Amino acid sequence: METILIVGGARSGKSQRAIELSRDTAPDRIFVATAEASDPEMADRIERHRADRGPGFTTVEAPLELVDALERAASPDRVVVVDCLTLWLSNLMHYGRDVEAQTAALTRFIARTPGPLILVSNEVGMGLVPGTPLGRGFRDAQGSLNQAVAAVCGRVEFMVAGLPMALKG
Amino acid sequence: METILIVGGARSGKSQRAIELSRDTAPDRIFVATAEASDPEMADRIERHRADRGPGFTTVEAPLELVDALERAASPDRVVVVDCLTLWLSNLMHYGRDVEAQTAALTRFIARTPGPLILVSNEVGMGLVPGTPLGRGFRDAQGSLNQAVAAVCGRVEFMVAGLPMALKG
Amino acid sequence: METILIVGGARSGKSQRAIELSRDTAPDRIFVATAEASDPEMADRIERHRADRGPGFTTVEAPLELVDALERAASPDRVVVVDCLTLWLSNLMHYGRDVEAQTAALTRFIARTPGPLILVSNEVGMGLVPGTPLGRGFRDAQGSLNQAVAAVCGRVEFMVAGLPMALKG
Repeated sequence: METILIVGGARSGKSQRAIELSRDTAPDRIFVATAEASDPEMADRIERHRADRGPGFTTVEAPLELVDALERAASPDRVVVVDCLTLWLSNLMHYGRDVEAQTAALTRFIARTPGPLILVSNEVGMGLVPGTPLGRGFRDAQGSLNQAVAAVCGRVEFMVAGLPMALKG
Repeated sequence: METILIVGGARSGKSQRAIELSRDTAPDRIFVATAEASDPEMADRIERHRADRGPGFTTVEAPLELVDALERAASPDRVVVVDCLTLWLSNLMHYGRDVEAQTAALTRFIARTPGPLILVSNEVGMGLVPGTPLGRGFRDAQGSLNQAVAAVCGRVEFMVAGLPMALKG
Repeated sequence: METILIVGGARSGKSQRAIELSRDTAPDRIFVATAEASDPEMADRIERHRADRGPGFTTVEAPLELVDALERAASPDRVVVVDCLTLWLSNLMHYGRDVEAQTAALTRFIARTPGPLILVSNEVGMGLVPGTPLGRGFRDAQGSLNQAVAAVCGRVEFMVAGLPMALKG
């Protein structure tokens, strides 16, 4: 089944690209949001994203139990958009979950999903070395997650200024 | 008319690429500088840039009134280089101008310019999430500006290590 | 002789790509490590890298005297992997060496090396402007070094999420 990873910087057009690619893929569309509305700034960001993507999606929230949500959502007649792996990773680390085990479960799921799947993730490793061990740990974990997911997806796109470059597929 | 956006990281060769593309485009060349020499480090940076591009340019300074400067400069016989949108955005935000209205005026201008135009802008969204609301706001505004300008330019290039990749056109 | 620069963000798969490209290039392989085990975090990182690349390499440490190490190592029968120019630059700046002279010596070496050479470097200029002069200086020096090395290498690749894009060659 078609599996696509869309990776790029902040405000590079990743979410819009995912929405665009999900059109005409399947009659039914599920949006899996990994954000938690933990503060007003984040709540505002979530609300803007919801407005941007318009109607036509069923939204499911999965800040931590992403793989479970995907198991329930996946179907040949339904395209699933995950936005985004960066917040999921951030939540996993914040709550002390086993990132390696979760990554392995996610890549196993992607490799055998019965339905089309589009995942969004951030590139965060192209600035200076972060000043704190926590920052460096997150940056490294995000890079490893992106590599692991890219390796099992059929197509990978890199977004810059709203424009996609094909990295794979 | 040919309109080109050159986007990339710091010291990726964006300015030199813009200068290079402006050669042979038109007999007359205007360089629109958006930097303000607000401190010695910036004054030094401006001076080095001026030395790097050599003679053959008329330089116009437009830290805020970029669209006005472009209206005056644009002509079929003249290529205009804008370096860079990142400092323009930073100046707009610093002086509390309406970024959305300015972006709209700029994209309208680009869509109907009578002469060739080359714009330089920074990619700033591929590091960790900035630690302050101001930093996050700037990063988001820069990403949105890059997307809006890329959408109306005929050609978009992404620079890495002094080498261009075509994103569009 | 084949000379390749691999540039990318943190954890983008640069080192693995260099190892992969070095296979079948020449019977003998030298790994030039520029890291200094100056603290436990760095020592741990060096050890993980050594384990990742497996046997089949002779490792040489050259935190500062990189060009000397390359002069000694280079041979038509031997592929040399340098990992990475970012730590070398950081060491040069930390110990107050002449970065311009060192860069010139390195690019002269690359242009006339008798054997295959693969160099790894980081892209660090796609985040927000660093908050300190030291940070801005490092970011600028890294960008200039990447441009200078890319200009003399026969092939340049940009890594994102473990996947290479050809920038040159």
